[in-house]
Amino acid sequence: MINPHERPLILVTNDDGIQAGGIRFLAETLLDLGDVVVVAPDRPMSGMGHAVTINETLHMEESPFPVDGIKAAWQTSGTPVDCVKLAIYEILGRKPDLLVSGINHGSNASINVIYSGTMSAAVEGAVEGIPSIGFSLLDHSADADFSSCQTFVLKLAQHVLSNGLPDGTCLNVNFPKLPVKDIKGMKICRQSAGYWEDAFDKRVSPGGRTYFWMTGKFNNPDQGQDTDEWALRNGYVSVVPTQFDLTAHHAIATLNQWDLS
Amino acid sequence: MINPHERPLILVTNDDGIQAGGIRFLAETLLDLGDVVVVAPDRPMSGMGHAVTINETLHMEESPFPVDGIKAAWQTSGTPVDCVKLAIYEILGRKPDLLVSGINHGSNASINVIYSGTMSAAVEGAVEGIPSIGFSLLDHSADADFSSCQTFVLKLAQHVLSNGLPDGTCLNVNFPKLPVKDIKGMKICRQSAGYWEDAFDKRVSPGGRTYFWMTGKFNNPDQGQDTDEWALRNGYVSVVPTQFDLTAHHAIATLNQWDLS
Repeated sequence: MINPHERPLILVTNDDGIQAGGIRFLAETLLDLGDVVVVAPDRPMSGMGHAVTINETLHMEESPFPVDGIKAAWQTSGTPVDCVKLAIYEILGRKPDLLVSGINHGSNASINVIYSGTMSAAVEGAVEGIPSIGFSLLDHSADADFSSCQTFVLKLAQHVLSNGLPDGTCLNVNFPKLPVKDIKGMKICRQSAGYWEDAFDKRVSPGGRTYFWMTGKFNNPDQGQDTDEWALRNGYVSVVPTQFDLTAHHAIATLNQWDLS
Repeated sequence: MINPHERPLILVTNDDGIQAGGIRFLAETLLDLGDVVVVAPDRPMSGMGHAVTINETLHMEESPFPVDGIKAAWQTSGTPVDCVKLAIYEILGRKPDLLVSGINHGSNASINVIYSGTMSAAVEGAVEGIPSIGFSLLDHSADADFSSCQTFVLKLAQHVLSNGLPDGTCLNVNFPKLPVKDIKGMKICRQSAGYWEDAFDKRVSPGGRTYFWMTGKFNNPDQGQDTDEWALRNGYVSVVPTQFDLTAHHAIATLNQWDLS
């Protein structure tokens, strides 16, 4: 798909913000494969899902970025999905050959995919018809060690650059928190049917106003060995083809039997 | 599923905010079917997708609401998805028997489903195992006339209360902007493969800073007569079963043929 005489254009974004270690690692790694432009939120945007900024203005500006050799880095006031749109329509003036998002600090396996700004940026790439991959490491810490991800990122990115992805899909890739020697390989999976059992930590401010922090516990009753959760627990990198057609096609026949007249 | 001797508990939310006309109409309409509690954002939250508030605090308070007979109304500082979680875990102390979201001022057909806070609230209900429906009217105006929606809302809500929904699904219901006499009925559909061709309106503030407004044009190359867009253009109410399993199951076989060793 890519002219072998031209370096492909690779857009790098994330939801942890342009300062995060994961995006630095990802941008640096992808320099081997093409011209890299970073367009990312100017602050952490975890949990933003597929939010877009339609009732407020957006700002963006060129930003320092601690990786030599990238073409440009921009920070925006917008969400991860806004960053993708601004990158295509204002900064690059064209669709990149590959969009990568991450590496997220924390899991986007199972139901986390729908809350994740990292994955929503990749899904937006898919909507735009761009081969897109979201990467996440199962380590929330700011100083997470991404080095085990490197060869897998390069292999997947190279494969997707050369072969594209099935129409209407992107990849949701999660890395177990393991040294590279303990990672068994990559496994194509489905999204596990886990969920968050939410709870709220209720507090009172010094001024007497009640407020809440969202907390919760992840439950995964889905014991399928074809799931992302199983792969990650068993030392594999999980790769889930992810789509933006939310139609529950299997339910259409059932609903057609309803008497709605 | 519902004990016929008890009135079902119905949670009403939206993304246009607790002041919007659509949520007032929806709450009032559903009083016929059960006890209604409103939990909605304290301001417009269109385009918030599946965003959740995890890096900031949440506030909520009881709110006046101009519909006699509802059990309670609460406004929160959170997104539509936050409202669903706060309602279940802090306000109701249990899962409602039905969750309805809307009526949105504007279309959530086709790709709009992934940007929509209205639909994300319904999807979150489905994640929680609650029978959930998102309603939208193809009229963006603040004083939109929702009266043609009434009989369809009641019919669908009653049916879902009595029969539930297929596991892991909710309904994305869109109404054409038509007088009730011109609506031909309800049609079970799939999500059309439309998309937004984005553009940014670039302006300069009085202080000299460049800023952007997101704009765009909706394109729908998908001519399928089984789509929500076709149904709406042809005078039907579109009903799309919508799911939170984003796995592109059909792509797994293709990806399994990749050589990723």
